[in-house]
Parts: sequence; structure tokens; C-alpha cells
Amino acid sequence: MSSANNQYVHDAWYVAGWSSEFTHSLLPLMILEQALVGYRCADGTVAILEDRCPHRQLPLSKGQLHNDNIQCGYHGMTFNGQGQCVRIPGQDNIPSSAYVRTYPVHEKNNIVFIWMGEPDKADTNAIFHLPQFDSDQWHAHQGDALHLKAHYMNVAENLVDPAHVSFVHPTTLGNAASEDIEVHVDVDSDVLLAWRWIRDAPPVGFFQKFGGFDANVDRWHYYYLHLPCTAVIDFGSADVSAQLQESERDKGVRIFALHFLTPVNEHYTIDRWMHLRNAAVGDEQASEQMDAMFRIAFNEDKEILEAIDEAERAVQTRKPIRLAIDKGPIVYRRRIQSLIDGERPEVELHA
Amino acid sequence: MSSANNQYVHDAWYVAGWSSEFTHSLLPLMILEQALVGYRCADGTVAILEDRCPHRQLPLSKGQLHNDNIQCGYHGMTFNGQGQCVRIPGQDNIPSSAYVRTYPVHEKNNIVFIWMGEPDKADTNAIFHLPQFDSDQWHAHQGDALHLKAHYMNVAENLVDPAHVSFVHPTTLGNAASEDIEVHVDVDSDVLLAWRWIRDAPPVGFFQKFGGFDANVDRWHYYYLHLPCTAVIDFGSADVSAQLQESERDKGVRIFALHFLTPVNEHYTIDRWMHLRNAAVGDEQASEQMDAMFRIAFNEDKEILEAIDEAERAVQTRKPIRLAIDKGPIVYRRRIQSLIDGERPEVELHA
Amino acid sequence: MSSANNQYVHDAWYVAGWSSEFTHSLLPLMILEQALVGYRCADGTVAILEDRCPHRQLPLSKGQLHNDNIQCGYHGMTFNGQGQCVRIPGQDNIPSSAYVRTYPVHEKNNIVFIWMGEPDKADTNAIFHLPQFDSDQWHAHQGDALHLKAHYMNVAENLVDPAHVSFVHPTTLGNAASEDIEVHVDVDSDVLLAWRWIRDAPPVGFFQKFGGFDANVDRWHYYYLHLPCTAVIDFGSADVSAQLQESERDKGVRIFALHFLTPVNEHYTIDRWMHLRNAAVGDEQASEQMDAMFRIAFNEDKEILEAIDEAERAVQTRKPIRLAIDKGPIVYRRRIQSLIDGERPEVELHA
Repeated sequence: MSSANNQYVHDAWYVAGWSSEFTHSLLPLMILEQALVGYRCADGTVAILEDRCPHRQLPLSKGQLHNDNIQCGYHGMTFNGQGQCVRIPGQDNIPSSAYVRTYPVHEKNNIVFIWMGEPDKADTNAIFHLPQFDSDQWHAHQGDALHLKAHYMNVAENLVDPAHVSFVHPTTLGNAASEDIEVHVDVDSDVLLAWRWIRDAPPVGFFQKFGGFDANVDRWHYYYLHLPCTAVIDFGSADVSAQLQESERDKGVRIFALHFLTPVNEHYTIDRWMHLRNAAVGDEQASEQMDAMFRIAFNEDKEILEAIDEAERAVQTRKPIRLAIDKGPIVYRRRIQSLIDGERPEVELHA
Repeated sequence: MSSANNQYVHDAWYVAGWSSEFTHSLLPLMILEQALVGYRCADGTVAILEDRCPHRQLPLSKGQLHNDNIQCGYHGMTFNGQGQCVRIPGQDNIPSSAYVRTYPVHEKNNIVFIWMGEPDKADTNAIFHLPQFDSDQWHAHQGDALHLKAHYMNVAENLVDPAHVSFVHPTTLGNAASEDIEVHVDVDSDVLLAWRWIRDAPPVGFFQKFGGFDANVDRWHYYYLHLPCTAVIDFGSADVSAQLQESERDKGVRIFALHFLTPVNEHYTIDRWMHLRNAAVGDEQASEQMDAMFRIAFNEDKEILEAIDEAERAVQTRKPIRLAIDKGPIVYRRRIQSLIDGERPEVELHA
Repeated sequence: MSSANNQYVHDAWYVAGWSSEFTHSLLPLMILEQALVGYRCADGTVAILEDRCPHRQLPLSKGQLHNDNIQCGYHGMTFNGQGQCVRIPGQDNIPSSAYVRTYPVHEKNNIVFIWMGEPDKADTNAIFHLPQFDSDQWHAHQGDALHLKAHYMNVAENLVDPAHVSFVHPTTLGNAASEDIEVHVDVDSDVLLAWRWIRDAPPVGFFQKFGGFDANVDRWHYYYLHLPCTAVIDFGSADVSAQLQESERDKGVRIFALHFLTPVNEHYTIDRWMHLRNAAVGDEQASEQMDAMFRIAFNEDKEILEAIDEAERAVQTRKPIRLAIDKGPIVYRRRIQSLIDGERPEVELHA
């Protein structure tokens, strides 16, 4: 199997969009190099279909929605939300080849998830969840869809890599105090984890603005990477006087930054990010203030990751070197490769 | 023969431009992936040459016209309208290799035709003609050159396909009344024909504005496709009371929309369109009103055809299905392929 | 050696920039398809390094300069001007693979030269020099960096080709009087030379403006091409009454236009041009007036050369013909090929 497609894990739930992105109109999407069209049906559910008429290949998203059916914009072939053709103008019989592929969809926590693999393997229990979504002690807020011209694995690496924060985000999420602090890694369970605590150090820009910290703090960064493409960054700060233990992070100002990566193609990834916090619950102005800070920080990542994507396209004359901080990223790539290999048909492994 | 060029019929007359496009100045053209330069000579004829100096390959269109000769803009090599080199500055002898290819050109009905195949096969009697060009009962008017990022075969298919009108042009050339009307096809003669009549139905937008019809009409669409790249769309409307027979179309308001397709490359086609009509003869305001309506309609085609061109570049996982309405397009492709095969040198067929 | 890189001579000094372009900040460069980063150190010397961190390949030019060291913008790996890694944040040992390549650099006549070949072959005595740089009878002035989307060999050809001047620069550097004047060529020494004298002819636009000539002049063009990529164009004018001999050019108004070509990739070349003159010494207004005239002329070359680059990408059906005026260019290409062949490793020549 040498197609470009074998760089993706297919048997997985990906984020197709925030719930608010899906209305009763045709929304073209591109996920794992597959052209899709989504819309919300009258019963409130979301349907996502292959975005290509099987007749002349016009994207169905160029057509029209008639009730819950899509009518192709070229010759009027019409498909229902299950992908079945229900009308061919000018002809009575509908051949069995007149269908489009559909994808399992599940909506949860105001997020629309799509299963890109074999439909009968789709298990909604496997969809990402955080208990804090259900807690009124926590405030959840959806941010933006950040478009990066970068391979999803490079973006994901960045999300299991606390060490970059000191250098890429010196005015927002990191500062010089963390430059030489050791990164701990736990790669034994399903979710990869890299973390570190910076004790008794100046607060980073984010918490100067948001938590109002000005004296030294204890602060932490926990990077959880759920394979293939979801990251939770648990970070926060607390007064040094509180002498917070690792397990007591809820006593500080604690934030979860969530990143849902949707690979578009091998050089394009959408990172839908949102955040949850245990402070300023219900305060929408605080949400917007945080959005603004995250936008600055994530655009710093974008600049780095897009420059790397371009550099990787050049002729390679040396093998990249690996550092101590790379354990998380290395294991991530190994696991992804293993998942991809596991999806190959038996016959091809033997070929 | 595996070059990209074997997707074109070469032994054919193509439209290089309206007569008004050719003046005593250098006009670069690209037809069947060949760079050409055209200009009008002192005697009024049009010359079209290969647009490449045989010395350093500068396009001759970057040079200057001196009387009826082109002087290259780099070192002054000069060619006459027959492609012969008549001067090499700084050198007396002119080698036999100092020439550029020229193409047979013929001007007719204010249209400049070019023969792209072997020159000795060029027969001006084979150039497209309509008797109505010579009739004072008819008014001819040249429209625009519509540039489409689409393969010419997909554009041509659209011009032997009455069924798309109801869905692509619902406010101009078609409406819902025609959606399920059967399409007739006659593919036995040299010119492919697809047609249908819609009887006793609301007039389409075009004839509401142009013919002033508001009550139900009988209307027709005849799509004639002259291979490889010229289409005549004969369409019109008449009062239901007139009970028009198929052969009596001249008694209604009848329009011919002509499309001259010029393939530029495999993803780019120029569609020069014009129209003739048996009403409002001599009324230039009516011509402009019709231009405006056609521009809306043909841009609807452009959007569809460019989206298909892009979709066809993606990896294909399914064979497109064919419908009853596809008979014209299917025969068109088969005929084109047969013409292309007929142009292959004997020796290559045996290879 | 079949990489795209074998179209360049590597064992050569190229111009990386004017001295004024290098300050204490990171300047990304692309030379012979290699990404480089340059900066001026505290001691005034210029360092040029490979612009790629060996860790995650981020261009180092995206990082920061700390004293004379570059800190990578992703994880803070830090390299000195000799390319050695001096710090890896969060880790004590520095592996031997933690380095970036550096390039020999030499600054002379306010120009920064870089050696792109094997470092131990770099000989600063081989760097281009003109005695007039050291003379107070001459005024030197640096012009622009002209960016051309063209192969460097085509640009260089143009600089050993006096014949193009009459046709490409009819209002500035040439005029009709020179069209049929024979070009002399001397290709026996290391520096290729093509030249011609035009006696008793109207002055060209340049010398009407700069020398104030209005009556007929004797004028000359000497094109010296130093391999691989430096050209000196010695041109000037004198009153016909002076009856200047070829060796007496200093008695006329004499100008050297210097072109330092830096190949960026096979379709992109930077031409840094400057000029020296034996008139209006110390007159900066004259320098600017000359800059303005050169800009017009060199943009005329740019238009021609970029059109040729595009034409050469098309499918070639004919072999270009060669003219008497092509001797200089032909020998230039042969010499370049010979230099490139000489750089191939022995083992590959035998393969």
C-alpha cells in the first residue's frame, strides 16, 4: 500500500467542526484528503457524505439541499442523507451504483465528530471526553479553527512537547525560567504524557493577564496526547505559598487547552482549539481575553510549523538528530505508524 | 504516441479569434498547447506563426512588427508571414533551419479560423458555416471569449446535453418544467444532435425578457455538436396557440447560440460564443440584452465545469456511472478518440 | 551525480551580498539551492551557516542572535559562528552530530563573497578584483540586486553577447547603428571576451544623458565574462575627432558595469550590479542618474530572459539554431560544463 493515504489513521473519530458550523446548508469539508459535504437534517442530526456526484463528479456541495436530500447542481441526481440516490431526472430506474459514501457522525459537547474508517468499527464510546465538560465548576469555550500548512504529525508533536514553550512563546505561555527544566514523559499508557513543573518562578504573560499573578508562582504544563489527533494541555499557576502538590492542580488557576487536529492533506492541518477553566466561570469577557492570548501563541506555533513543512520539502542531506526532549514525539510517531500498519489488509502485509 | 498532445484532434479548423481581435500588432495565442503569434498584414489577411524564435526561443510576440515581418526582440532575427527568415543581423548567410512554422488561416463571417493539422489537408470548404449568416432575416452578434479552466471535452459534452439546463440555468435558459422531459438523440450523422420540446409550459427567464412571453409557450432546445469543437444551440419559444411543428421553428422566436471551443491546454479552454436570431433584427440594444443574459448563463456552466475539472484531478476510486441522458456525450468522446487515433502515424499503431 | 545540484559550479566564490546587507541580524539567503543564514559578528566579520537546525529542521533564521550565536526558535539549540552547537536546553551532553555546516566568507571592495565548494579549496586570491577599485581616478557605486526568474547560464550568456544591445536596449545602451557591426570574440584565455567598436555613429541614449555627447562618437562594448558568474562590461564613447585606439579607452568616457550573478535555483538568479567610471568622480548625483538608466536597461534584459525561461519549460520539438554571434555563449556553456564535470567524484565518472 503506497498511496498517499497510508499516512493517516482511518479508524478514528476526527472533529469535522464545531456544532455551530453545521446548519441546514451544504458545507464542503476536506478530511484525510477526502472531499466531504455536511449538513444538519430536519431532525437535528448531522449527515456527512462523499462530496462527489457519481455521475459527472461535480461536488454535491455545488448543488442544493431539498429538505434532507442533496440535488446535484449539474443534472439533478438527488441523494438522501444515507447516500442513496432517490431521483434521476428523465429516467425511472435507479441503478445500484447510484449512491455516495456516507460517514458515521456523532455530536457531543457541541462538537461534530466523524468516523473516517470502516463504518462497522465506529464506537461512539471511544469519542474523546473530559469529565470537566459536565461540571458547573468549569467553563468551556470554543475558540478558532487554526489552519496550518503543515503535516498533522508535526503539529501533534508540538502538542506533546513542553520544551518548545520557553522559546516559541516567550511572552505568552512560557518564559526564560523554564528553559532548562527537565521534561518528564510517560508513554506507557494509551494517552501519551509529557509534563514539567516550574517552581517559584515569575508568572508567564498569560497568567499575569488572566490570573492576575505578579509575584513568583509555581506553574505546570501537562501535555496529554490522545492518539491520533487530540491534545489536552493542562496548565496553570498557583501562589508559591500554597505549596501545591502535583495532584492538587485544581486548587490553582487551572486551564485545559484542547486541540482537535483534522488532517486535510499531507501539508495542511486544521487545529480546532478550545479551552476549559476552573476560574472566571460564566465570564464571557474572560473567555474572549483568553482567546486573544491563545491566538497570539498559536500563531507563533503556526509560523514555526509552516517553516518546518517547507524545509522538509527540500532535499534532505542529513538525518535529523534527536534530543532528550523528543521522547514524546518519537513514541507518538511510532504509535501512529503502528496504527496505520494495523489497518493494512493482511494480503498486503504479505506482499 | 504518449505525449500530452494526443488528446487533441489536430486536423481541424479551430477559431483563433474574432476578426476584430487581429490588427497590425502582435497577438500571442495558445492553441492545443502550441504557442502562436498572429497579426493582420497590409493586404488584410491574417498570418499566424509559431511564437518562438528558433535561435534562443524568445517568443516572437515579444518582438516588433516591421511591415509584415516580425523582428525578434533579442537579436533581431526577422521572419516574414510565411515563416521564412529574411534577416540575421551581423551575418549574411541565412541557414535553412532559420524558419518558424506557419499555420493555414481563413477568415469567414468575421471569424478567424486556423488549421492546426498537416497544412496540405486544410480544406476551407470544411469550415463551419450556417446559411443564416447570409440572410437579412437574421441578426448575428459576437459575444465574449469565455475562459474556462476545464478540459475541452467536458465543455463540449455540456453542449450536447439539454438535460443540464433545468438545473444549471434555472433562472435563464431552463426551468423546472423541463426537468423530466425526455431527451432525443441522433448520433448517426457527422453532426451529433440532442433535442427536446417542452410543450405548454411557462417560458424560461430568457424569453420572458427577450420575447416578452408571459403565458405558457411551446419551447425547444436543439443541440448540434460539430466535431471536434463547434456547437450550435437552436432554441426558441412560440405561443402554444401556434401549435408549432418541429420543422416550423422559424415561425417562433428562434435563436442560435454558437460556441467555438478552442482548447488551450488540458485544463484550459476558450469558448467564443455568439448568437443569431430571427427577431429584433438590427436592434443593437436587443443584442446587448441577450449578451447580458448569456453571460449569466455561461458563467453558471463555467462554475460547474471548473469544479469538475478540479474533482477529476483527485484520486479516482470509482468509475463514473452513466445515465440515459449521456448518449450524446458518450458518442462525442468515442468519435473524438477515433479522430485522434486516425491521426496517429501507421508506425506507431504497430509499435 | 544526478541531483539537480550538478548544474552549478560549486568550487567558486559567489557574491552573497553587498557589505551593507550584512548587519548584526539574521539574513536568510538561498544560493545554489542551499538555504543559508548570514550575519555580521561583533568583530566585524561575516558568518554564513546552513539555515537549518539539525534537530527539527527549522530555519535558524527564524531564531534569534545572542551575541555571535544563533539560538533556534523552536527548542533553543544554540550554534556559534563556526557552526558548533554550544547549548541544548534541558540536556548537558552535546552530541557530535549537533552542528551546522559553515561556509568560507571573504569581504572585499564592500562585497561579501562566499565559497560554495569544499572549504579547503577556498583561495581568497581567486576572488574577483579590478585595479580600478583602488584608483582615485575612478568612482565605484553599488546598484541593485536584480531578481530574475531565469537560469543563470541564460543570464550569463546575455553578458558575453554584445549583439543583443541594439535590439533589447534601443533607447539606452544601443541603437540601430550597431545592428550589423561584427562581434569579435576571444575565448582562448580564462576570461571570455566579446567586443565591438562602432565608429562615427550617433551616441546611444546613455551617453547623450551621461557624457553629454550629441554629435557622432566612436563607441565600444567589451564584455568580459569571468567564470562562472561575474561579468565586466567595459563600454564608453569618445569624440570622433579623438580617433581613439582600442588601447586608449581611458581617454574617453569609460564605464565598467559589473554583474555578479548568484544562482538561487535553476529558475532564479540574482544579478547584483554596480558600476565604476572615470568621469564625474565623487558626483553622487551622477551615480544615481546612471543607476536610473541601468535600471531601465536591465529590466529590458529581465523581460527577455524570463520569457525565455518560460519558453524553455515547454516541450521542445526543435533544436535551437546557432548564429555567428553565439561563439561567446557556446564556449561559456562548454566551459561551465567542464568545470562541473571536474567536480564529480572519480568513482562517479567511472560509473
